[in-house]
Amino acid sequence: MAGTRRPGEFEAIARWLAPLAAKAPGALGLVDDAAVLLPRPGQELVLTLDTMVSGVHFLADDPPDLVARKLVRVNLSDLAAMGAEPAGCLLALTLTEAEDAAWLEAFAAGLGADLEEFGLALLGGDTAATPGALTLSLTALGWVPEGTAIRRSTAGAGEDIWVTGTLGDAALALALIEGRSAGRAIGEFPFLRERYRLPRPRSTVGPRLRGIATAMIDVSDGLAADLGHICETSGLAAAVAFVALPLSGEARALLDADAALAHAVAAGGDDYELLFTAKPDDAARIAAVAEETGVPIARIGAMRAGSGAEIRGLDGRPMTLEATGWRHF
Amino acid sequence: MAGTRRPGEFEAIARWLAPLAAKAPGALGLVDDAAVLLPRPGQELVLTLDTMVSGVHFLADDPPDLVARKLVRVNLSDLAAMGAEPAGCLLALTLTEAEDAAWLEAFAAGLGADLEEFGLALLGGDTAATPGALTLSLTALGWVPEGTAIRRSTAGAGEDIWVTGTLGDAALALALIEGRSAGRAIGEFPFLRERYRLPRPRSTVGPRLRGIATAMIDVSDGLAADLGHICETSGLAAAVAFVALPLSGEARALLDADAALAHAVAAGGDDYELLFTAKPDDAARIAAVAEETGVPIARIGAMRAGSGAEIRGLDGRPMTLEATGWRHF
Repeated sequence: MAGTRRPGEFEAIARWLAPLAAKAPGALGLVDDAAVLLPRPGQELVLTLDTMVSGVHFLADDPPDLVARKLVRVNLSDLAAMGAEPAGCLLALTLTEAEDAAWLEAFAAGLGADLEEFGLALLGGDTAATPGALTLSLTALGWVPEGTAIRRSTAGAGEDIWVTGTLGDAALALALIEGRSAGRAIGEFPFLRERYRLPRPRSTVGPRLRGIATAMIDVSDGLAADLGHICETSGLAAAVAFVALPLSGEARALLDADAALAHAVAAGGDDYELLFTAKPDDAARIAAVAEETGVPIARIGAMRAGSGAEIRGLDGRPMTLEATGWRHF
Repeated sequence: MAGTRRPGEFEAIARWLAPLAAKAPGALGLVDDAAVLLPRPGQELVLTLDTMVSGVHFLADDPPDLVARKLVRVNLSDLAAMGAEPAGCLLALTLTEAEDAAWLEAFAAGLGADLEEFGLALLGGDTAATPGALTLSLTALGWVPEGTAIRRSTAGAGEDIWVTGTLGDAALALALIEGRSAGRAIGEFPFLRERYRLPRPRSTVGPRLRGIATAMIDVSDGLAADLGHICETSGLAAAVAFVALPLSGEARALLDADAALAHAVAAGGDDYELLFTAKPDDAARIAAVAEETGVPIARIGAMRAGSGAEIRGLDGRPMTLEATGWRHF
């Protein structure tokens, strides 16, 4: 409606964002109604979309460059989980009165840095004003050879369950920040803090697992919930031992001090690691992917007939984990 | 963050939206991290994104089915302006506490009806909660044969300017609703009200103008602003006579009663008609497209060297129109 149109402001946005799209020929300089993407022969497109809302997924005073980078990386993690290589993205930026030129400049700087680092082209988008909360949606596109996209629903009974990197770092950092750990401060755990601050999508690992991973998901809702998604969609059960979960040195030190935080590792979320299933015969190929990429990959359990994801605790009994997890509707 | 996750609610959303995606094989039943789209040989993808915010682009008590349909149609209008055929879409649904099951059911019904009518597949999306305003972003994808997408920036001097349908209907309806017309009520103008209530994207006309339109845009910001975009990006001026603008019978009757409302026709917005340029030799081909589709197409002026879009009023002098218009950054 006419009263909400602020052309000067939108010109300012164009000034910060248009240069990021200049390298993408299909973006048409962001002056058109739409962008154009030329298909690659023999490849199909993978499409994903993630929304981040101020006060929900990040805090209003979080550094804008980090907000932008988290938005890009959360989407890249979804592409990696399908085995896709990054192609391009469209940004829906819904701004309040609070985001001034300095905010936009910092946001664009963070966005540009990550688009460059991960090879994702900014193809277009839309900017709108809101009386509510700052809202960011990114639609990301990736390429996979036809028929090779890795789904969640295709795990098989008897297959091994693997996970990249380490689990629980971000959730443990959040527990420290929120004072839920006995007498320990986030300042003592710089690695955990960094893991919480900025996701590290496994973009180099995901595409290399095509033809190896039988099912894959990224761990964003927490191991219990995301393994649950594989179980539910594949019609199987999963058995995992907590003792097998890969932990960082800082996570291990914190758990030694406060065993109750094991819950945060098993169900905490924001790991952005890749969780996948594979046939037992493929263990050596998985070791080779870990070697090539420098990203550790650990076997944490196995799929079997039945339903539900069970994580056995250090006492040998199934951990009781509350139901969590967004659902991509 | 864990506190904002409401699995039960998101299950409910899945119940309403998943069936809409069931027909799209690439949507993978909306259970995966991402959707898959198989390219069509010789075709390229056109991508567009539009955001609608409650209290800005629609009112909180607007019927949810109409909100959904407007969202779809605004995006379809962008695809049509590129000459593209609808392919698929991804929905970012950012909900407040106010949208209950009845709201979601009605929203999904409206969405489903328009996806069906216009042949747009729901490929995926994301749902999030917000403490702010209900926010909807749709990323729409369309197909065009390689190299035939119609841009804004490619108009030529000496070319004619054309527009589909009629202009000003939605803006005049808004003027009536807001009491800006002398003593006339919206109830007297059912056609104008319908044009305001629900955009009618020119999806059948757009693709037929490939190879005819040299530049094209959809009139969403108003004739003056959108013709201005063609001028600016093409490095040309436009000369249009108000007397040549196609008006509906109701618009003409209202203007006869209140000539000051001419401003709403020239600069009002929300027309969702196609505005394009073409070589004078192509007038007969354009008449044939109008005949085939049943959508009137009127010649309203010409492009020439210079800059700026000038609309001459009924008094023969250039109309003074305030700068308006969103910019898709």
